[in-house]
Amino acid sequence: MNVTAPRLAVIGLGLIGGSAARAFRSGGAVSSITGYDADDHQIRLASELGVIDAGAASAAEAVRDADVVLIAVPVLATAEALRACAPGLSMHTVVTDVGSTKQSALSAAAEVFGEIPARFVAAHPIAGTEKSGIAHSLTDLFHGHRVILTPHARQDAAALACVEKLWEAAGARVVRMDAARHDAIFAATSHLPHLIAYSFVDMLARLDSADTDIFPNAGGGFRDFTRIASSSPRMWHDIVRANAQPVAALLRRQIGELQDLLTMIESGRWDELQTIFERAREARERHLAKIE
Amino acid sequence: MNVTAPRLAVIGLGLIGGSAARAFRSGGAVSSITGYDADDHQIRLASELGVIDAGAASAAEAVRDADVVLIAVPVLATAEALRACAPGLSMHTVVTDVGSTKQSALSAAAEVFGEIPARFVAAHPIAGTEKSGIAHSLTDLFHGHRVILTPHARQDAAALACVEKLWEAAGARVVRMDAARHDAIFAATSHLPHLIAYSFVDMLARLDSADTDIFPNAGGGFRDFTRIASSSPRMWHDIVRANAQPVAALLRRQIGELQDLLTMIESGRWDELQTIFERAREARERHLAKIE
Repeated sequence: MNVTAPRLAVIGLGLIGGSAARAFRSGGAVSSITGYDADDHQIRLASELGVIDAGAASAAEAVRDADVVLIAVPVLATAEALRACAPGLSMHTVVTDVGSTKQSALSAAAEVFGEIPARFVAAHPIAGTEKSGIAHSLTDLFHGHRVILTPHARQDAAALACVEKLWEAAGARVVRMDAARHDAIFAATSHLPHLIAYSFVDMLARLDSADTDIFPNAGGGFRDFTRIASSSPRMWHDIVRANAQPVAALLRRQIGELQDLLTMIESGRWDELQTIFERAREARERHLAKIE
Repeated sequence: MNVTAPRLAVIGLGLIGGSAARAFRSGGAVSSITGYDADDHQIRLASELGVIDAGAASAAEAVRDADVVLIAVPVLATAEALRACAPGLSMHTVVTDVGSTKQSALSAAAEVFGEIPARFVAAHPIAGTEKSGIAHSLTDLFHGHRVILTPHARQDAAALACVEKLWEAAGARVVRMDAARHDAIFAATSHLPHLIAYSFVDMLARLDSADTDIFPNAGGGFRDFTRIASSSPRMWHDIVRANAQPVAALLRRQIGELQDLLTMIESGRWDELQTIFERAREARERHLAKIE
């Protein structure tokens, strides 16, 4: 154990919080880990699994001796978590998060502290699985993946460097970008696909033939296409709500594209249909190496 | 080599034709394999890879001494392939296919031969990858997967049993169902997802930020959701066209569902959104064991 490394507190002991704790410890980046979760069971499990050194009775208690606090809760619970931590925070504590929407994280910090604290670092690790809960947490979840930091106007450089160091110890590649740009990008690459996958599976599930015909005949393409529809509904409710405007704009655009496709099929414009397929395949193949 | 096993001819030496040839041989179900493809290169490759024993200069020549002919071409090329085989077929030859749409296969056979031949067996192995071409063919592609046979009114029982035996030797589980029911099911579980995935990737590819922002920030969820958008455009053009009516009906329904979702987001009906996510996740998890 590296005693000069910061002491970590994790608020929210789910898949991401648990995996981050494992990864930071494995990378020698933290000297101790306390944890808190609204669900006692997750705290006990985190202790039993050795993911945390000690559980706390409250968020404020968990963060009291911490140098770095990692907030790993559904994005709309960020303000509440920050508020619960506040009594235990010192003016030196670095606070960071892992949420999929970054403007909402900065807003939450501003809401709770009056303005965004200089030592608040908004971060988004681009990794995860459709599984939830600390039982599924993995030490190498972030290895080789991107972590996006979205610095704000009042950002403390040392706090930013501290969080960057943690994620690099987890094997991630850290990049920085503006929070609004981040949210627009992930509306497209992540939030919209989740919406579509949920909607598609729900539509099929409500067909009369769902149990007898549909699901028993689903193959590998279906499994991969719908994998993200097994993700946490609460988490994704929060993400869509927190990033509603970019998501709605893209969803509207996607509906328009599908409407065009339907018209092509109904009017037998098959060459145009194939052109879309060709463009899509070409784009995906060209970028595949970049897809993590 | 089992000399009492049937001699196979494969017309169309792509991923499925090549994998079937490998699997039937590996299962000891065929005594020899001839092959034909419109693309000379695929024939040479099939010979070099040992997938076929001999290439032929035409489809008719390939099938001349065959007991079973496997048509493995894009579905709208089925009639043309059958017509090309016809001069070489004996009245004892069993002819089967692997197409993703089964009413179209039966129609193609009826179109070429005046009525559906009793020894024509329409079949659909529920397996594949997004890859194309014989170079990607795999011996175990069908292992543990379903193969659906859609017997017709004039079906010869011995021909049906012969094809069933081949696929069982490939490690597949053979089930039988009506062709119309098959096409309705796969419009839902396979054809619609492909349409959506192609449309989604094409939409993103046409955004100004595609190369700089979107694709470099695509993660694992994106990769799986869009995997099927790397499938053969020609093959999927044919499938959608051959099964246009059920596909259009479901696409119309899906557009309606996405429109409802958009309205929920725009009017802040967040509980309803979460209910959809919960229903979808629950359905997927409940049926996951059935998804191959």
